[in-house]
Amino acid sequence: MILVINCGSSSAKYQLFDVKKHMPLARGVVERIGQSASTLRHQAGGDTLHRKVSCKDHHTAINLIVGILTDERYGVISSKDEISGIGHRVVHGGEEFEESTLITEKVIRSIKIFSELDPLHNPPSLSGIMACSKMLEGIPQVAVFDTAFHQTMPPAAFIYGLPFEYYKKYKIRKYGFHGTSHRFVAGEAARLLKRPLNKLKLITCHLGNGCSMAAVDRGKSADTSMGFTPLEGLMMGTRSGDLDPAVVFYLMKKERLTPRRISDILNKESGLLGVSGESNDMRDILKKLRGKGEGAKRAGLAIDIFIYRIKKYIGAYQAVMGGLDAVVFTAGISENNPWLVNRVAKELKGVVRKRTKFMVVPTNEELLIARDTHQIIDRRPQTEDHRPKTS
Amino acid sequence: MILVINCGSSSAKYQLFDVKKHMPLARGVVERIGQSASTLRHQAGGDTLHRKVSCKDHHTAINLIVGILTDERYGVISSKDEISGIGHRVVHGGEEFEESTLITEKVIRSIKIFSELDPLHNPPSLSGIMACSKMLEGIPQVAVFDTAFHQTMPPAAFIYGLPFEYYKKYKIRKYGFHGTSHRFVAGEAARLLKRPLNKLKLITCHLGNGCSMAAVDRGKSADTSMGFTPLEGLMMGTRSGDLDPAVVFYLMKKERLTPRRISDILNKESGLLGVSGESNDMRDILKKLRGKGEGAKRAGLAIDIFIYRIKKYIGAYQAVMGGLDAVVFTAGISENNPWLVNRVAKELKGVVRKRTKFMVVPTNEELLIARDTHQIIDRRPQTEDHRPKTS
Repeated sequence: MILVINCGSSSAKYQLFDVKKHMPLARGVVERIGQSASTLRHQAGGDTLHRKVSCKDHHTAINLIVGILTDERYGVISSKDEISGIGHRVVHGGEEFEESTLITEKVIRSIKIFSELDPLHNPPSLSGIMACSKMLEGIPQVAVFDTAFHQTMPPAAFIYGLPFEYYKKYKIRKYGFHGTSHRFVAGEAARLLKRPLNKLKLITCHLGNGCSMAAVDRGKSADTSMGFTPLEGLMMGTRSGDLDPAVVFYLMKKERLTPRRISDILNKESGLLGVSGESNDMRDILKKLRGKGEGAKRAGLAIDIFIYRIKKYIGAYQAVMGGLDAVVFTAGISENNPWLVNRVAKELKGVVRKRTKFMVVPTNEELLIARDTHQIIDRRPQTEDHRPKTS
Repeated sequence: MILVINCGSSSAKYQLFDVKKHMPLARGVVERIGQSASTLRHQAGGDTLHRKVSCKDHHTAINLIVGILTDERYGVISSKDEISGIGHRVVHGGEEFEESTLITEKVIRSIKIFSELDPLHNPPSLSGIMACSKMLEGIPQVAVFDTAFHQTMPPAAFIYGLPFEYYKKYKIRKYGFHGTSHRFVAGEAARLLKRPLNKLKLITCHLGNGCSMAAVDRGKSADTSMGFTPLEGLMMGTRSGDLDPAVVFYLMKKERLTPRRISDILNKESGLLGVSGESNDMRDILKKLRGKGEGAKRAGLAIDIFIYRIKKYIGAYQAVMGGLDAVVFTAGISENNPWLVNRVAKELKGVVRKRTKFMVVPTNEELLIARDTHQIIDRRPQTEDHRPKTS
């Protein structure tokens, strides 16, 4: 069994995989960690349990997760010894990690260092890793980085037009995110197209709460729309995406904003929410669109901008790859809005080859994390396995 | 005769056109206005005059220009009455001006208002206009805006993914610049291709000190790479171009920079200069490229990024126009580096139609300003002409 953990600042998601199966045996989430009224939601065998819990930190959360997985009534395993490995989603792997890796003391130090680049995501991942080291002592852990897949980008794609010293001093460059999702759906697309991934030029579009696109050239990420942070690129639910950088300091001056405040505006109050003035949720915006007046107009504008940028990136990535076999859409907005994919395909008919496919493929980052974890643990030399043998 | 004036913060360029001819009778520039050691450079009939002058402001500069144009020895006209109209290059016309316009009190007020959006360029243009009103009283003046051509962009292209209130409150949106140049070379390209402009899908690339691209769909700008300010888009001599907006506030925080200082870094110390660490001039960078070591590597990187972004925008604009007949390169970098245009054309062979042309067309903004000025004055009702008739 592989346990997949995804720790956010106030949540810990989990899935337990039998690696031979594509569906998890159990999944769930602890929410409101460190706040009042924490909850545990646990799904297994078609049943869903909602439980009020007390959860002051990620250690407690991991304890709750192990507890429910081995619970007599709701659990799916009889002992934590059935867990052969733990895979953690870690957002930022900097320039160090080009692939998933067995977690060692050195890896932990690196994740700590990259917290500087991603103070929002890396610290809770680290807490999850430390909690597992303690609660599930001896079970090998693997880090699967959101940035790793994009480490194949060429410098022309990842270096910004800034004084070069900022790259050397602060490692300011394009990293890209959602890597696990882009890698997963690129693989799935190749399988569905019945062609080898290393012969395909693909564009993958992850359109969820966050939105990003990647140029996947023969299986490798050649470019991606998110940048130094997830703010760059497509317009998203609440993120502005691409913006004249001068707008940032113009607005700061005009509205006397601190760096923290402008960051919040651009990350949390912009995008579909900011333009529509309504909601960050495509469903709400579509509802509004069917109405009248200013509200409907703004909803229409939000959708137009959203789609316009997707088209621009498809064109740009086709250009840098020198060809395009398929555009692969995934994540919530893609999966729930076939009209959107159809509209993009129709509007781009004139500029892609006749044989270019537009397809929707559900993503499954957790499955890929489980697979990576299983593979890495499997090929690990036996001497490193200091966990008591149970199977 | 049409006098074309282009006032910068410390310079005033001029060209005097006989509108029937494509070449100016005389051209020149007053430099270091308001500083010590001001100079006048004046070219006419193959001769160039360099003169040390005293020039405390734009009024004096216009006086010097009129003086030299009517000078017995160096001049080309016998009296200022031979000037039938004055065309001014004005950078920012906001959302008000979709085309060149006769300058009235109302237009002057608007240019003043748009100084808020472009405090660097609009005030010296205004000074030039006011100086001409005084020195060349009664001669009609026309404003030719750098932003006007791009006013045909659809909202999906010009609205940012920001809270909508910032568009309403501060008019923060994409304006685009270099409009006169994009319009001029689009027209020239149609002429050279012997096809009507309103049947062509063109991408124009103005690669000079500033660099911008435009999608010119049947004669109208459909999108352009510069934005709210000229900072957005392509990497330029000293401007960063596109950048994760989060880099702006990250750097501000890290280096404790004021909005003014980060603006200077991104506008004046970035781009080719920042990446190469060497120069903002493509010629210097090419020289460095032939050397060895870190310098050559950085020079190569600067060129790679520069070209990579051009390719991305060509792809993006082909996508939004749904086709592409020709890519038109203009301005210094384009005109002096045929290898660059060839490289872009070669690398994009796989993604444009076989009949898509890549061409270099010299720009001539001053000629277009002269033409616009002539046309507008020509169709002006006679009653408005309060200048003494001289011809």
